[in-house]
Amino acid sequence: MKIGCFGLGSMGYGMAASLLRAGHDVLGLDPNAAAADRLRGAGGLAGTLAEHAATLDAVVIVVLNAAQTRDVLFGPAGIAEHLRPGAAVMACATVPPAFAREMAGLCAAQDLPYLDAPISGGSVKAAAGQLSVMASGSDAAFAALRPVLDATAATVFELGADPGAGSAMKAINQMLAGIHIAAMGEALTFGLTQGVAPAQAVEVIAQCAGTSWMFENRGPHVATGDYTPHSAINIWPKDLGIVLDIAAGAKFGAPLTAAALQQFLAAAGSGLGAEDDAAIAKIYARNAGLTLPGDKP
Amino acid sequence: MKIGCFGLGSMGYGMAASLLRAGHDVLGLDPNAAAADRLRGAGGLAGTLAEHAATLDAVVIVVLNAAQTRDVLFGPAGIAEHLRPGAAVMACATVPPAFAREMAGLCAAQDLPYLDAPISGGSVKAAAGQLSVMASGSDAAFAALRPVLDATAATVFELGADPGAGSAMKAINQMLAGIHIAAMGEALTFGLTQGVAPAQAVEVIAQCAGTSWMFENRGPHVATGDYTPHSAINIWPKDLGIVLDIAAGAKFGAPLTAAALQQFLAAAGSGLGAEDDAAIAKIYARNAGLTLPGDKP
Repeated sequence: MKIGCFGLGSMGYGMAASLLRAGHDVLGLDPNAAAADRLRGAGGLAGTLAEHAATLDAVVIVVLNAAQTRDVLFGPAGIAEHLRPGAAVMACATVPPAFAREMAGLCAAQDLPYLDAPISGGSVKAAAGQLSVMASGSDAAFAALRPVLDATAATVFELGADPGAGSAMKAINQMLAGIHIAAMGEALTFGLTQGVAPAQAVEVIAQCAGTSWMFENRGPHVATGDYTPHSAINIWPKDLGIVLDIAAGAKFGAPLTAAALQQFLAAAGSGLGAEDDAAIAKIYARNAGLTLPGDKP
Repeated sequence: MKIGCFGLGSMGYGMAASLLRAGHDVLGLDPNAAAADRLRGAGGLAGTLAEHAATLDAVVIVVLNAAQTRDVLFGPAGIAEHLRPGAAVMACATVPPAFAREMAGLCAAQDLPYLDAPISGGSVKAAAGQLSVMASGSDAAFAALRPVLDATAATVFELGADPGAGSAMKAINQMLAGIHIAAMGEALTFGLTQGVAPAQAVEVIAQCAGTSWMFENRGPHVATGDYTPHSAINIWPKDLGIVLDIAAGAKFGAPLTAAALQQFLAAAGSGLGAEDDAAIAKIYARNAGLTLPGDKP
Protein backbone atom coordinates (compact mmCIF):
# COMPACT_ATOMS: atom_id res chain seq x y z
CA MET A 1 0.00 0.00 0.00
CA LYS A 2 0.96 3.61 -0.42
CA ILE A 3 0.38 5.38 2.87
CA GLY A 4 0.67 8.98 4.02
CA CYS A 5 1.63 9.29 7.68
CA PHE A 6 0.69 12.64 9.21
CA GLY A 7 2.53 13.32 12.45
CA LEU A 8 5.96 11.84 13.15
CA GLY A 9 6.23 12.29 16.89
CA SER A 10 7.26 9.39 19.10
CA MET A 11 4.07 7.45 18.34
CA GLY A 12 3.62 8.44 14.70
CA TYR A 13 7.23 7.84 13.74
CA GLY A 14 7.13 4.39 15.25
CA MET A 15 4.01 3.54 13.31
CA ALA A 16 5.47 4.91 10.05
CA ALA A 17 8.65 2.90 10.59
CA SER A 18 6.57 -0.22 11.28
CA LEU A 19 4.71 0.32 8.00
CA LEU A 20 8.03 0.63 6.14
CA ARG A 21 9.25 -2.62 7.71
CA ALA A 22 6.08 -4.35 6.51
CA GLY A 23 6.93 -3.36 2.92
CA HIS A 24 4.56 -0.47 2.37
CA ASP A 25 5.41 2.78 0.58
CA VAL A 26 5.28 5.48 3.24
CA LEU A 27 5.26 9.24 2.85
CA GLY A 28 6.01 10.93 6.16
CA LEU A 29 4.68 14.40 6.89
CA ASP A 30 5.47 16.57 9.89
CA PRO A 31 6.02 20.30 10.54
CA ASN A 32 9.33 19.15 12.03
CA ALA A 33 11.44 18.72 8.87
CA ALA A 34 14.05 16.67 10.71
CA ALA A 35 11.50 13.96 11.51
CA ALA A 36 10.36 13.82 7.87
CA ASP A 37 13.98 13.69 6.70
CA ARG A 38 14.69 10.87 9.12
CA LEU A 39 11.84 8.79 7.74
CA ARG A 40 13.01 9.37 4.16
CA GLY A 41 16.47 8.23 5.27
CA ALA A 42 14.88 5.06 6.63
CA GLY A 43 13.30 4.27 3.25
CA GLY A 44 10.30 6.58 3.10
CA LEU A 45 9.05 8.11 -0.12
CA ALA A 46 10.64 11.27 -1.49
CA GLY A 47 8.55 14.03 -3.03
CA THR A 48 5.79 16.30 -1.82
CA LEU A 49 2.33 15.61 -0.59
CA ALA A 50 0.96 17.37 -3.67
CA GLU A 51 2.77 14.87 -5.89
CA HIS A 52 1.51 11.82 -3.98
CA ALA A 53 -1.93 12.77 -2.63
CA ALA A 54 -4.03 11.42 -5.46
CA THR A 55 -2.36 8.00 -5.40
CA LEU A 56 -2.38 7.34 -1.64
CA ASP A 57 -4.32 4.25 -0.53
CA ALA A 58 -4.55 5.40 3.06
CA VAL A 59 -3.64 8.19 5.44
CA VAL A 60 -2.69 7.61 9.07
CA ILE A 61 -3.13 10.64 11.32
CA VAL A 62 -1.15 10.58 14.57
CA VAL A 63 -1.35 14.17 15.78
CA LEU A 64 -1.94 15.80 19.16
CA ASN A 65 -5.69 16.37 19.27
CA ALA A 66 -8.98 16.97 17.48
CA ALA A 67 -8.03 20.42 16.14
CA GLN A 68 -4.89 19.07 14.45
CA THR A 69 -6.83 16.08 13.09
CA ARG A 70 -9.39 18.42 11.55
CA ASP A 71 -6.62 20.56 10.10
CA VAL A 72 -4.92 17.58 8.44
CA LEU A 73 -8.16 16.52 6.78
CA PHE A 74 -10.14 19.69 6.18
CA GLY A 75 -7.90 22.64 7.01
CA PRO A 76 -6.66 25.22 4.47
CA ALA A 77 -4.18 22.66 3.11
CA GLY A 78 -6.38 19.70 4.02
CA ILE A 79 -5.74 16.37 2.36
CA ALA A 80 -9.32 15.10 2.09
CA GLU A 81 -10.21 16.87 -1.14
CA HIS A 82 -7.07 15.55 -2.86
CA LEU A 83 -7.53 11.88 -2.03
CA ARG A 84 -8.95 9.40 -4.51
CA PRO A 85 -12.37 7.92 -3.69
CA GLY A 86 -11.96 4.85 -1.48
CA ALA A 87 -8.71 6.00 0.11
CA ALA A 88 -9.04 5.20 3.83
CA VAL A 89 -8.42 7.44 6.82
CA MET A 90 -7.12 6.07 10.14
CA ALA A 91 -7.36 8.71 12.87
CA CYS A 92 -5.31 7.90 15.99
CA ALA A 93 -5.37 11.02 18.20
CA THR A 94 -7.35 11.02 21.46
CA VAL A 95 -10.51 12.96 20.54
CA PRO A 96 -14.11 13.27 21.73
CA PRO A 97 -16.40 10.55 20.33
CA ALA A 98 -18.66 13.22 18.83
CA PHE A 99 -15.69 14.65 16.93
CA ALA A 100 -14.88 11.21 15.52
CA ARG A 101 -18.46 10.88 14.31
CA GLU A 102 -18.32 14.30 12.67
CA MET A 103 -15.07 13.50 10.87
CA ALA A 104 -16.40 10.12 9.74
CA GLY A 105 -19.46 11.83 8.29
CA LEU A 106 -17.43 14.44 6.42
CA CYS A 107 -15.10 11.77 5.07
CA ALA A 108 -18.01 9.53 4.03
CA ALA A 109 -19.37 12.43 1.97
CA GLN A 110 -16.16 12.21 -0.07
CA ASP A 111 -16.19 8.40 -0.19
CA LEU A 112 -13.28 8.12 2.24
CA PRO A 113 -13.76 5.22 4.73
CA TYR A 114 -12.86 6.48 8.22
CA LEU A 115 -11.55 4.39 11.11
CA ASP A 116 -11.83 5.89 14.59
CA ALA A 117 -8.63 4.33 15.87
CA PRO A 118 -7.03 5.75 19.02
CA ILE A 119 -3.88 3.97 20.04
CA SER A 120 -2.32 2.87 23.30
CA GLY A 121 0.98 1.38 24.35
CA GLY A 122 3.66 4.06 24.29
CA SER A 123 6.58 4.83 21.99
CA VAL A 124 8.42 1.55 22.50
CA LYS A 125 5.45 -0.51 21.35
CA ALA A 126 4.79 1.96 18.53
CA ALA A 127 8.32 1.42 17.24
CA ALA A 128 7.89 -2.34 17.49
CA GLY A 129 4.55 -2.40 15.64
CA GLN A 130 2.96 -3.74 18.84
CA LEU A 131 0.38 -1.07 19.71
CA SER A 132 -3.14 -1.61 21.00
CA VAL A 133 -5.77 0.02 18.81
CA MET A 134 -9.33 0.75 19.96
CA ALA A 135 -11.03 0.82 16.60
CA SER A 136 -14.51 1.42 15.28
CA GLY A 137 -15.83 2.13 11.81
CA SER A 138 -17.43 0.60 8.77
CA ASP A 139 -16.49 -2.80 7.39
CA ALA A 140 -15.01 -0.94 4.42
CA ALA A 141 -12.76 1.06 6.75
CA PHE A 142 -11.58 -2.04 8.60
CA ALA A 143 -11.00 -3.91 5.33
CA ALA A 144 -9.07 -1.08 3.68
CA LEU A 145 -6.88 -0.50 6.75
CA ARG A 146 -6.30 -4.15 7.73
CA PRO A 147 -2.71 -4.12 6.38
CA VAL A 148 -2.01 -0.94 8.39
CA LEU A 149 -3.43 -2.50 11.56
CA ASP A 150 -1.45 -5.69 10.92
CA ALA A 151 1.79 -3.74 10.62
CA THR A 152 1.34 -1.45 13.61
CA ALA A 153 -0.74 -3.27 16.24
CA ALA A 154 -0.40 -6.33 18.42
CA THR A 155 -4.01 -6.01 19.57
CA VAL A 156 -6.96 -4.50 17.71
CA PHE A 157 -10.14 -4.07 19.73
CA GLU A 158 -12.91 -4.05 17.11
CA LEU A 159 -15.63 -2.01 18.75
CA GLY A 160 -18.28 -1.96 16.06
CA ALA A 161 -19.44 0.16 13.17
CA ASP A 162 -20.07 3.37 15.12
CA PRO A 163 -17.20 5.83 14.71
CA GLY A 164 -16.84 7.28 18.19
CA ALA A 165 -16.87 3.90 19.94
CA GLY A 166 -13.09 3.68 19.64
CA SER A 167 -12.66 7.18 21.03
CA ALA A 168 -15.12 6.46 23.85
CA MET A 169 -13.13 3.41 24.93
CA LYS A 170 -9.89 5.40 24.73
CA ALA A 171 -11.43 8.10 26.94
CA ILE A 172 -12.42 5.45 29.52
CA ASN A 173 -8.87 4.08 29.44
CA GLN A 174 -7.29 7.52 29.80
CA MET A 175 -9.60 8.43 32.67
CA LEU A 176 -8.49 5.33 34.57
CA ALA A 177 -4.83 5.61 33.57
CA GLY A 178 -4.63 9.25 34.68
CA ILE A 179 -6.35 8.56 38.00
CA HIS A 180 -4.13 5.56 38.63
CA ILE A 181 -0.90 7.48 37.97
CA ALA A 182 -1.96 10.23 40.37
CA ALA A 183 -3.04 7.59 42.91
CA MET A 184 0.38 5.96 42.58
CA GLY A 185 2.02 9.30 43.42
CA GLU A 186 -0.41 9.96 46.26
CA ALA A 187 0.12 6.52 47.80
CA LEU A 188 3.91 6.32 47.53
CA THR A 189 4.39 9.76 49.06
CA PHE A 190 1.79 9.02 51.75
CA GLY A 191 3.84 5.93 52.55
CA LEU A 192 6.92 8.11 52.99
CA THR A 193 5.16 10.02 55.77
CA GLN A 194 4.86 6.69 57.61
CA GLY A 195 8.44 5.62 56.98
CA VAL A 196 7.72 3.26 54.09
CA ALA A 197 10.30 3.54 51.28
CA PRO A 198 8.73 3.70 47.80
CA ALA A 199 10.72 0.66 46.66
CA GLN A 200 9.27 -1.43 49.47
CA ALA A 201 5.74 -0.19 48.82
CA VAL A 202 6.09 -0.99 45.10
CA GLU A 203 7.29 -4.50 45.88
CA VAL A 204 4.54 -5.32 48.38
CA ILE A 205 1.54 -3.54 46.87
CA ALA A 206 2.19 -5.04 43.44
CA GLN A 207 1.20 -8.36 45.06
CA CYS A 208 -1.90 -6.94 46.79
CA ALA A 209 -5.40 -5.79 45.88
CA GLY A 210 -4.23 -2.16 45.72
CA THR A 211 -2.19 -2.64 42.58
CA SER A 212 -2.79 -1.28 39.09
CA TRP A 213 -1.02 -1.51 35.77
CA MET A 214 0.13 2.08 36.20
CA PHE A 215 1.26 1.48 39.80
CA GLU A 216 3.48 -1.36 38.65
CA ASN A 217 4.73 0.52 35.59
CA ARG A 218 5.29 4.01 37.05
CA GLY A 219 5.95 3.19 40.71
CA PRO A 220 9.51 2.03 39.97
CA HIS A 221 10.26 5.43 38.38
CA VAL A 222 9.53 7.06 41.74
CA ALA A 223 11.34 4.34 43.67
CA THR A 224 14.51 4.86 41.62
CA GLY A 225 14.15 8.62 41.12
CA ASP A 226 14.29 8.20 37.32
CA TYR A 227 11.96 10.63 35.56
CA THR A 228 13.20 10.06 31.99
CA PRO A 229 10.01 10.84 30.07
CA HIS A 230 8.50 7.68 28.62
CA SER A 231 5.12 9.42 28.83
CA ALA A 232 5.24 13.07 29.88
CA ILE A 233 3.27 14.98 32.50
CA ASN A 234 2.09 17.25 29.66
CA ILE A 235 -0.01 14.44 28.17
CA TRP A 236 -2.41 14.51 31.10
CA PRO A 237 -3.77 18.05 31.25
CA LYS A 238 -4.64 17.44 27.58
CA ASP A 239 -6.12 13.93 27.88
CA LEU A 240 -7.95 14.39 31.18
CA GLY A 241 -9.18 17.73 29.85
CA ILE A 242 -10.69 15.91 26.86
CA VAL A 243 -12.22 13.31 29.19
CA LEU A 244 -13.78 15.98 31.41
CA ASP A 245 -15.07 17.90 28.39
CA ILE A 246 -16.82 14.75 27.18
CA ALA A 247 -18.14 14.12 30.70
CA ALA A 248 -19.42 17.68 31.11
CA GLY A 249 -21.19 17.40 27.78
CA ALA A 250 -23.12 14.47 29.25
CA LYS A 251 -23.67 16.28 32.59
CA PHE A 252 -21.52 13.58 34.18
CA GLY A 253 -19.61 14.52 37.32
CA ALA A 254 -16.20 12.86 37.58
CA PRO A 255 -14.65 13.90 40.89
CA LEU A 256 -11.65 11.56 40.89
CA THR A 257 -10.76 12.53 37.33
CA ALA A 258 -11.08 16.18 38.29
CA ALA A 259 -8.84 15.71 41.34
CA ALA A 260 -6.23 13.92 39.24
CA LEU A 261 -6.30 16.70 36.64
CA GLN A 262 -5.60 19.31 39.31
CA GLN A 263 -2.48 17.40 40.37
CA PHE A 264 -1.24 17.15 36.77
CA LEU A 265 -1.91 20.86 36.24
CA ALA A 266 0.13 21.63 39.36
CA ALA A 267 2.94 19.48 37.97
CA ALA A 268 2.82 21.13 34.54
CA GLY A 269 2.50 24.59 36.09
CA SER A 270 5.49 24.14 38.33
CA GLY A 271 7.86 23.17 35.54
CA LEU A 272 7.58 19.39 35.46
CA GLY A 273 5.65 19.16 32.17
CA ALA A 274 8.44 17.49 30.19
CA GLU A 275 9.29 14.95 32.88
CA ASP A 276 7.88 11.45 33.07
CA ASP A 277 4.33 11.46 34.39
CA ALA A 278 5.52 9.61 37.49
CA ALA A 279 6.82 13.06 38.52
CA ILE A 280 3.28 13.72 39.77
CA ALA A 281 4.76 12.32 43.00
CA LYS A 282 6.91 15.46 43.26
CA ILE A 283 3.82 17.64 43.75
CA TYR A 284 2.73 15.55 46.70
CA ALA A 285 6.25 15.49 48.10
CA ARG A 286 6.70 19.26 47.83
CA ASN A 287 3.35 19.94 49.46
CA ALA A 288 4.20 17.69 52.38
CA GLY A 289 7.88 18.63 52.75
CA LEU A 290 9.06 15.14 51.84
CA THR A 291 12.26 13.97 50.15
CA LEU A 292 11.85 11.50 47.29
CA PRO A 293 14.49 9.01 46.11
CA GLY A 294 16.91 10.89 43.86
CA ASP A 295 16.19 14.28 45.44
CA LYS A 296 19.24 16.28 46.35
CA PRO A 297 19.56 16.25 50.15
CA MET B 1 -0.85 -24.09 70.31
CA LYS B 2 -3.74 -22.83 72.40
CA ILE B 3 -5.07 -19.71 70.75
CA GLY B 4 -7.77 -17.20 71.64
CA CYS B 5 -9.47 -15.67 68.61
CA PHE B 6 -11.18 -12.35 69.36
CA GLY B 7 -13.66 -11.37 66.68
CA LEU B 8 -15.49 -14.00 64.61
CA GLY B 9 -16.78 -11.93 61.73
CA SER B 10 -16.23 -13.07 58.14
CA MET B 11 -12.46 -12.60 58.41
CA GLY B 12 -11.96 -13.68 62.01
CA TYR B 13 -14.13 -16.78 61.74
CA GLY B 14 -12.22 -17.92 58.67
CA MET B 15 -8.91 -17.48 60.46
CA ALA B 16 -10.17 -19.34 63.56
CA ALA B 17 -11.44 -22.19 61.39
CA SER B 18 -8.08 -22.33 59.59
CA LEU B 19 -6.31 -22.59 62.96
CA LEU B 20 -8.60 -25.47 63.96
CA ARG B 21 -7.86 -27.27 60.68
CA ALA B 22 -4.14 -26.92 61.40
CA GLY B 23 -4.62 -28.79 64.68
CA HIS B 24 -4.51 -25.94 67.18
CA ASP B 25 -6.79 -25.56 70.20
CA VAL B 26 -8.92 -22.51 69.47
CA LEU B 27 -11.17 -20.53 71.82
CA GLY B 28 -13.47 -18.27 69.83
CA LEU B 29 -14.78 -15.06 71.37
CA ASP B 30 -17.35 -12.71 69.91
CA PRO B 31 -20.22 -10.57 71.26
CA ASN B 32 -22.33 -12.49 68.75
CA ALA B 33 -22.99 -15.74 70.67
CA ALA B 34 -24.07 -17.57 67.52
CA ALA B 35 -20.64 -17.11 65.95
CA ALA B 36 -18.91 -18.41 69.09
CA ASP B 37 -21.32 -21.38 69.23
CA ARG B 38 -20.61 -22.15 65.60
CA LEU B 39 -16.87 -22.29 66.22
CA ARG B 40 -17.37 -24.58 69.21
CA GLY B 41 -19.49 -26.81 66.99
CA ALA B 42 -16.62 -26.93 64.50
CA GLY B 43 -14.22 -28.20 67.16
CA GLY B 44 -13.35 -25.09 69.14
CA LEU B 45 -12.69 -25.14 72.87
CA ALA B 46 -15.56 -25.03 75.35
CA GLY B 47 -15.34 -22.94 78.49
CA THR B 48 -14.96 -19.30 79.30
CA LEU B 49 -12.16 -16.88 78.63
CA ALA B 50 -11.57 -16.64 82.39
CA GLU B 51 -10.92 -20.42 82.49
CA HIS B 52 -8.48 -20.35 79.56
CA ALA B 53 -6.76 -16.95 79.68
CA ALA B 54 -3.72 -17.93 81.73
CA THR B 55 -2.89 -20.89 79.48
CA LEU B 56 -3.26 -19.25 76.05
CA ASP B 57 -0.13 -19.25 73.90
CA ALA B 58 -1.43 -16.52 71.60
CA VAL B 59 -4.35 -14.23 70.96
CA VAL B 60 -5.46 -13.22 67.47
CA ILE B 61 -7.51 -10.01 67.33
CA VAL B 62 -9.66 -9.54 64.23
CA VAL B 63 -11.99 -6.73 65.18
CA LEU B 64 -13.27 -3.62 63.41
CA ASN B 65 -10.83 -0.90 64.40
CA ALA B 66 -8.33 0.53 66.87
CA ALA B 67 -10.90 1.22 69.60
CA GLN B 68 -12.07 -2.39 69.63
CA THR B 69 -8.47 -3.65 69.56
CA ARG B 70 -7.65 -1.52 72.59
CA ASP B 71 -10.76 -2.78 74.36
CA VAL B 72 -9.86 -6.44 73.78
CA LEU B 73 -6.39 -5.91 75.24
CA PHE B 74 -6.71 -3.17 77.84
CA GLY B 75 -10.44 -2.43 78.28
CA PRO B 76 -12.42 -3.08 81.49
CA ALA B 77 -12.43 -6.80 80.70
CA GLY B 78 -9.11 -6.65 78.83
CA ILE B 79 -7.19 -9.86 78.29
CA ALA B 80 -3.64 -8.50 78.57
CA GLU B 81 -3.37 -8.63 82.35
CA HIS B 82 -4.56 -12.26 82.41
CA LEU B 83 -2.11 -13.66 79.86
CA ARG B 84 1.04 -15.52 80.87
CA PRO B 85 4.37 -13.80 80.11
CA GLY B 86 5.47 -14.65 76.58
CA ALA B 87 1.97 -15.16 75.22
CA ALA B 88 1.94 -13.47 71.79
CA VAL B 89 -0.57 -10.95 70.40
CA MET B 90 -1.42 -10.80 66.70
CA ALA B 91 -3.44 -7.66 65.90
CA CYS B 92 -5.16 -7.75 62.49
CA ALA B 93 -7.51 -4.75 62.34
CA THR B 94 -6.72 -1.80 60.09
CA VAL B 95 -5.34 0.80 62.51
CA PRO B 96 -3.07 3.87 62.44
CA PRO B 97 0.65 2.97 62.63
CA ALA B 98 1.02 5.12 65.77
CA PHE B 99 -1.70 3.09 67.47
CA ALA B 100 0.11 -0.16 66.62
CA ARG B 101 3.28 1.25 68.18
CA GLU B 102 1.41 2.27 71.31
CA MET B 103 -0.17 -1.18 71.71
CA ALA B 104 3.18 -2.90 71.09
CA GLY B 105 4.74 -0.79 73.82
CA LEU B 106 1.98 -1.53 76.33
CA CYS B 107 2.17 -5.24 75.53
CA ALA B 108 5.97 -5.28 75.80
CA ALA B 109 5.65 -3.86 79.32
CA GLN B 110 3.78 -7.07 80.22
CA ASP B 111 6.20 -9.31 78.28
CA LEU B 112 3.65 -9.98 75.54
CA PRO B 113 5.28 -10.03 72.05
CA TYR B 114 3.09 -8.00 69.68
CA LEU B 115 2.77 -8.49 65.92
CA ASP B 116 1.32 -5.60 63.92
CA ALA B 117 -0.42 -7.82 61.36
CA PRO B 118 -3.17 -6.30 59.22
CA ILE B 119 -4.67 -8.76 56.77
CA SER B 120 -5.84 -8.61 53.18
CA GLY B 121 -7.65 -10.96 50.85
CA GLY B 122 -11.33 -11.13 51.80
CA SER B 123 -13.51 -13.71 53.49
CA VAL B 124 -12.97 -16.49 50.94
CA LYS B 125 -9.20 -16.43 51.41
CA ALA B 126 -9.64 -16.09 55.16
CA ALA B 127 -11.71 -19.29 55.21
CA ALA B 128 -9.09 -21.06 53.10
CA GLY B 129 -6.15 -19.99 55.26
CA GLN B 130 -4.79 -18.07 52.25
CA LEU B 131 -4.68 -14.48 53.48
CA SER B 132 -1.97 -11.92 52.85
CA VAL B 133 -0.54 -10.50 56.06
CA MET B 134 1.46 -7.27 56.25
CA ALA B 135 3.41 -7.95 59.39
CA SER B 136 5.96 -6.15 61.52
CA GLY B 137 7.26 -6.75 65.00
CA SER B 138 10.07 -8.27 67.03
CA ASP B 139 11.77 -11.53 66.14
CA ALA B 140 10.11 -12.96 69.26
CA ALA B 141 6.68 -11.97 67.96
CA PHE B 142 7.32 -13.50 64.53
CA ALA B 143 8.71 -16.68 66.11
CA ALA B 144 5.86 -17.12 68.56
CA LEU B 145 3.21 -16.52 65.91
CA ARG B 146 4.80 -18.45 63.05
CA PRO B 147 2.35 -21.39 63.43
CA VAL B 148 -0.56 -18.94 63.33
CA LEU B 149 0.81 -17.27 60.19
CA ASP B 150 1.43 -20.67 58.61
CA ALA B 151 -2.16 -21.72 59.22
CA THR B 152 -3.89 -18.53 58.10
CA ALA B 153 -1.75 -16.89 55.39
CA ALA B 154 -0.57 -17.72 51.90
CA THR B 155 1.73 -14.68 51.87
CA VAL B 156 3.40 -12.95 54.80
CA PHE B 157 5.12 -9.67 54.03
CA GLU B 158 7.73 -9.33 56.77
CA LEU B 159 8.18 -5.58 57.07
CA GLY B 160 10.73 -5.34 59.84
CA ALA B 161 10.90 -4.93 63.59
CA ASP B 162 8.99 -1.63 63.85
CA PRO B 163 5.37 -2.22 64.89
CA GLY B 164 3.48 0.23 62.72
CA ALA B 165 5.21 -0.77 59.49
CA GLY B 166 2.55 -3.39 58.84
CA SER B 167 -0.24 -0.92 59.47
CA ALA B 168 1.47 1.69 57.29
CA MET B 169 1.62 -0.73 54.36
CA LYS B 170 -2.02 -1.70 54.92
CA ALA B 171 -2.97 1.99 54.86
CA ILE B 172 -1.14 2.43 51.53
CA ASN B 173 -2.96 -0.59 50.13
CA GLN B 174 -6.38 0.59 51.35
CA MET B 175 -5.78 4.08 49.95
CA LEU B 176 -5.10 2.62 46.51
CA ALA B 177 -7.83 -0.01 46.71
CA GLY B 178 -10.48 2.55 47.70
CA ILE B 179 -9.43 4.98 44.97
CA HIS B 180 -9.39 2.21 42.38
CA ILE B 181 -12.89 0.97 43.28
CA ALA B 182 -14.28 4.49 43.00
CA ALA B 183 -12.37 4.99 39.74
CA MET B 184 -13.88 1.74 38.42
CA GLY B 185 -17.36 3.11 39.18
CA GLU B 186 -16.53 6.50 37.70
CA ALA B 187 -15.12 5.02 34.49
CA LEU B 188 -17.81 2.41 33.81
CA THR B 189 -20.63 4.91 34.29
CA PHE B 190 -18.76 7.53 32.24
CA GLY B 191 -18.57 4.91 29.51
CA LEU B 192 -22.35 4.50 29.65
CA THR B 193 -22.77 8.16 28.76
CA GLN B 194 -20.87 7.41 25.55
CA GLY B 195 -22.78 4.24 24.73
CA VAL B 196 -20.16 1.79 25.99
CA ALA B 197 -21.69 -1.14 27.90
CA PRO B 198 -19.88 -1.93 31.17
CA ALA B 199 -19.27 -5.52 30.07
CA GLN B 200 -17.44 -4.32 26.95
CA ALA B 201 -15.40 -1.77 28.90
CA VAL B 202 -14.40 -4.42 31.45
CA GLU B 203 -13.30 -6.78 28.70
CA VAL B 204 -11.24 -4.23 26.78
CA ILE B 205 -9.75 -2.13 29.59
CA ALA B 206 -8.60 -5.25 31.48
CA GLN B 207 -6.14 -5.67 28.60
CA CYS B 208 -5.03 -2.02 28.58
CA ALA B 209 -2.90 0.33 30.67
CA GLY B 210 -5.99 1.63 32.48
CA THR B 211 -6.59 -1.58 34.37
CA SER B 212 -6.25 -2.29 38.07
CA TRP B 213 -6.75 -5.30 40.31
CA MET B 214 -9.94 -3.71 41.63
CA PHE B 215 -11.18 -2.84 38.14
CA GLU B 216 -10.86 -6.48 37.08
CA ASN B 217 -12.32 -7.79 40.34
CA ARG B 218 -15.21 -5.36 40.88
CA GLY B 219 -15.97 -4.29 37.29
CA PRO B 220 -17.79 -7.56 36.54
CA HIS B 221 -20.13 -6.91 39.50
CA VAL B 222 -21.30 -3.72 37.76
CA ALA B 223 -21.39 -5.38 34.35
CA THR B 224 -23.68 -8.14 35.63
CA GLY B 225 -25.62 -6.02 38.14
CA ASP B 226 -24.68 -8.38 41.01
CA TYR B 227 -24.05 -6.47 44.24
CA THR B 228 -23.91 -9.46 46.59
CA PRO B 229 -21.55 -8.07 49.25
CA HIS B 230 -18.14 -9.73 49.05
CA SER B 231 -16.72 -6.51 50.52
CA ALA B 232 -19.29 -3.94 51.59
CA ILE B 233 -19.54 -0.21 50.88
CA ASN B 234 -19.45 0.33 54.67
CA ILE B 235 -15.82 -0.80 54.84
CA TRP B 236 -14.67 2.28 52.98
CA PRO B 237 -15.85 5.25 55.03
CA LYS B 238 -14.05 3.48 57.89
CA ASP B 239 -10.84 2.54 56.08
CA LEU B 240 -10.43 5.71 54.01
CA GLY B 241 -11.28 7.67 57.15
CA ILE B 242 -8.38 5.98 58.93
CA VAL B 243 -6.11 6.67 55.96
CA LEU B 244 -7.05 10.36 55.88
CA ASP B 245 -6.61 10.65 59.66
CA ILE B 246 -3.10 9.28 59.33
CA ALA B 247 -2.45 11.61 56.40
CA ALA B 248 -3.78 14.67 58.21
CA GLY B 249 -1.56 13.84 61.17
CA ALA B 250 1.41 14.13 58.81
CA LYS B 251 0.01 17.29 57.15
CA PHE B 252 -0.28 15.25 53.96
CA GLY B 253 -2.97 16.27 51.47
CA ALA B 254 -4.58 13.33 49.67
CA PRO B 255 -7.08 14.75 47.18
CA LEU B 256 -7.91 11.54 45.31
CA THR B 257 -8.43 9.64 48.56
CA ALA B 258 -10.67 12.46 49.78
CA ALA B 259 -12.69 12.43 46.55
CA ALA B 260 -13.11 8.66 46.78
CA LEU B 261 -14.23 8.90 50.40
CA GLN B 262 -16.94 11.41 49.45
CA GLN B 263 -18.34 8.94 46.94
CA PHE B 264 -18.37 6.10 49.48
CA LEU B 265 -20.06 8.38 52.03
CA ALA B 266 -22.73 9.22 49.45
CA ALA B 267 -23.23 5.51 48.86
CA ALA B 268 -23.45 4.70 52.57
CA GLY B 269 -25.66 7.71 53.23
CA SER B 270 -28.12 6.79 50.52
CA GLY B 271 -28.72 3.29 51.79
CA LEU B 272 -26.14 1.24 49.89
CA GLY B 273 -23.86 0.55 52.87
CA ALA B 274 -24.51 -3.18 53.02
CA GLU B 275 -24.16 -3.75 49.28
CA ASP B 276 -20.95 -4.80 47.56
CA ASP B 277 -18.55 -1.90 47.22
CA ALA B 278 -18.95 -2.04 43.45
CA ALA B 279 -22.29 -0.31 44.17
CA ILE B 280 -20.29 2.92 44.24
CA ALA B 281 -21.23 2.93 40.53
CA LYS B 282 -24.86 3.55 41.54
CA ILE B 283 -23.96 6.97 42.96
CA TYR B 284 -22.46 8.02 39.65
CA ALA B 285 -25.38 6.54 37.74
CA ARG B 286 -28.01 8.30 39.88
CA ASN B 287 -26.24 11.63 39.60
CA ALA B 288 -26.09 11.36 35.83
CA GLY B 289 -29.53 9.83 35.25
CA LEU B 290 -28.07 6.60 33.89
CA THR B 291 -29.41 3.05 33.97
CA LEU B 292 -26.98 0.35 35.09
CA PRO B 293 -27.17 -3.34 34.18
CA GLY B 294 -29.72 -4.97 36.51
CA ASP B 295 -31.58 -1.73 37.18
CA LYS B 296 -35.34 -1.97 36.86
CA PRO B 297 -36.39 -0.13 33.72
